[in-house]
Amino acid sequence: MALSKKPVTGMKDIMPAEMQLRDYVIGVIKETYGKFGFTSIETPCVENIANLSSRQGGENEKLIFKILKRGEKLDLASAQGEEDLVDGGLRYDLTVPLVRYYSNHANELPSPFKALQMGNVWRADHPQKGRYRQFMQCDIDILGEPSNLAEIELILATTTTLGKLGFKGFQIRINERRILKAMAAYCGFPEEAYDQIFITLDKMDKIGPEGVSSELEKGGFAKDSVEKYLELFKGMADAEDGLVFLADRLEGQGVLESETVQSLKEIIASVQATKASEFEIVFDPTLVRGMSYYTGTIFEIAMPEFGASCGGGGRYDKMVGRFTGKDVPACGFSIGFERIILIMMENGFRIPEENRKVAYLIEKGIAVDGLCKIIAQAQEERQDGTQVLVARMNKNKKFQKEQLNKEGYMEFREFYKNPLKN
Amino acid sequence: MALSKKPVTGMKDIMPAEMQLRDYVIGVIKETYGKFGFTSIETPCVENIANLSSRQGGENEKLIFKILKRGEKLDLASAQGEEDLVDGGLRYDLTVPLVRYYSNHANELPSPFKALQMGNVWRADHPQKGRYRQFMQCDIDILGEPSNLAEIELILATTTTLGKLGFKGFQIRINERRILKAMAAYCGFPEEAYDQIFITLDKMDKIGPEGVSSELEKGGFAKDSVEKYLELFKGMADAEDGLVFLADRLEGQGVLESETVQSLKEIIASVQATKASEFEIVFDPTLVRGMSYYTGTIFEIAMPEFGASCGGGGRYDKMVGRFTGKDVPACGFSIGFERIILIMMENGFRIPEENRKVAYLIEKGIAVDGLCKIIAQAQEERQDGTQVLVARMNKNKKFQKEQLNKEGYMEFREFYKNPLKN
Repeated sequence: MALSKKPVTGMKDIMPAEMQLRDYVIGVIKETYGKFGFTSIETPCVENIANLSSRQGGENEKLIFKILKRGEKLDLASAQGEEDLVDGGLRYDLTVPLVRYYSNHANELPSPFKALQMGNVWRADHPQKGRYRQFMQCDIDILGEPSNLAEIELILATTTTLGKLGFKGFQIRINERRILKAMAAYCGFPEEAYDQIFITLDKMDKIGPEGVSSELEKGGFAKDSVEKYLELFKGMADAEDGLVFLADRLEGQGVLESETVQSLKEIIASVQATKASEFEIVFDPTLVRGMSYYTGTIFEIAMPEFGASCGGGGRYDKMVGRFTGKDVPACGFSIGFERIILIMMENGFRIPEENRKVAYLIEKGIAVDGLCKIIAQAQEERQDGTQVLVARMNKNKKFQKEQLNKEGYMEFREFYKNPLKN
Repeated sequence: MALSKKPVTGMKDIMPAEMQLRDYVIGVIKETYGKFGFTSIETPCVENIANLSSRQGGENEKLIFKILKRGEKLDLASAQGEEDLVDGGLRYDLTVPLVRYYSNHANELPSPFKALQMGNVWRADHPQKGRYRQFMQCDIDILGEPSNLAEIELILATTTTLGKLGFKGFQIRINERRILKAMAAYCGFPEEAYDQIFITLDKMDKIGPEGVSSELEKGGFAKDSVEKYLELFKGMADAEDGLVFLADRLEGQGVLESETVQSLKEIIASVQATKASEFEIVFDPTLVRGMSYYTGTIFEIAMPEFGASCGGGGRYDKMVGRFTGKDVPACGFSIGFERIILIMMENGFRIPEENRKVAYLIEKGIAVDGLCKIIAQAQEERQDGTQVLVARMNKNKKFQKEQLNKEGYMEFREFYKNPLKN
């Protein structure tokens, strides 16, 4: 078979300039999250196929890169279908592996457990500009904290990090799955249709209230329910405080507990009062988020520079129980690492340079004792914190220096065979 | 299918304490290699199966985790064998992907190109203690540098890094594929049998000269050749300088160019004279290294604490040509990252702590304005560089503090509902 110079379809090679930015961003993220007491962990990139196909991953489960069984376990002749051929798959997110990890190690871990994960995930999506089949995710999660302190800390840690990376003027949109459900219940929609309704609601920013209304009516829902639903959203939009309006309407109807709204208010107030960067946090009753595992608060980062969301998360209190039989409160926030990088590159972000950079150019033919002296000098400068590139001098020295300028080397030392030239 | 709490067979979850060490080591490696002018790059973890099966990877090609084709491309009914089912695989090293990357991007890259790669690789080896099927590799490579400046810089960069991590008293063993071949030619072994001879020679440290001698004779090689071969090794061992002895014998026999020995001497002398950490570099004529792609110098790190090699590398001038049709000089050095971590953990290495660490314990039931004040204070301390964990106070506060002590929190602030207690 011929060798291919290209990376596999839909995945990309990362060039030095982007890599430098990524390393810088990873450093800022690890340092800032560290200040909040999050500790790094890592799980294998490969997971048992059963864990990846347990319907917790929604649509992502259709996009798994599956791994062929090996050795005697692979029996091609008797295989009936894909499921007989594979035993593992590349993870499509970091949440399923985290929950498996926590279930496996809970008694070795502190409680609550504050985890930071940075790692690649894979999805066999249709390749398109700016979206790749291998991409980095960056998640923080708090397991074992039932109170809204988890949400407050997650949002503060994430927004502080974004601030340190130079982002401002963004929005954190927040909502609650229980509020979403209460609104649907209040309007008389059948419970089994909630997911379908939320899928339509999710399009509000694209198709507007009329679009949502007509899509729901076409979906066969009662006109009364649809009207009541749309009125709720209009009421919230017009009210000074959407949450107060909602609480007035829904509480006492048996569909929503007052603690739910109270807790959400607390999160918004605390974050607003203690934030360390320029952004706002707003209640957004149309925020849905796709993953079916969310059980409480959900939130998302909206960037003015970027149409789509740049990250999000929420509470998923029922997921550990699927592994262990015993539920553990859990809440997470994932930064859209690749989008952050994309925005920073498009904005021409410049990494603060720390090192002095010097290039040594050595003429060919210098004897070994001369070379030793030069290298010893380079070693000393490195010891003192300078970045020293040692290279052979090219015939076209001017061109070589121009190329090195592009790599950030503006200072040169030249060493010649003839000691008089040095 | 039931969910599994365990990681897939042969791969491991990394716990916070180990992860902290890994992050620290990664930081030291990136910083030190950076001072030598190496720039980070990254390639996808998945490679085209053709690239992984091109007989450059030796035994590792038998250990590939292969990835099932997806969608219409997967035709189970007509598949004759494995090769019809898969289109990609997880990389088993970082060298094949680097060479593909360089072939793809050479005209966007500086020349010479000094690359640093840190990334996971996968091999479906028999799981055993301390060896996992997913493990991190850490490679530096210089492409486009024909002179031994490449070897000198690679060895200095690697050994300086090891020194910064606290390693000393180790050995760099160095040899040359062309010297290995010249010795075999000098003794009259047939060229097509060189690989077989080198496999036996590689066991010298385990089975001794007698073992090598008898294995070669059993292999059907002429007694004369075997005796001459063993005499060579004895002569080198007894000589004051093995390389001088070897040059005296082999040069002028038409099997070895004097530049080869001269260059190796230069590498050893320069490294010895300019090293920034405590180690020695020695010529080891029995060093073979398995990978068939090496064309010149080969080297290895031998640690007293650890029986096996802790890393190695060499020159592979013919590999880029397999992708592009045009050879490019190339040389690399790979640190055995997982072994380094294992040794550091066994030695109880302690990471230099940078941050002050404080835990805030908040009694349940504090009103939102009180909470805001506490969190604002935490935010301020974080801004000043302190690591602040904000947690709910447990009923058993003493136990909670003991647990937090284990995580390194020795300083506490307690906040009570009753303001008089604060």
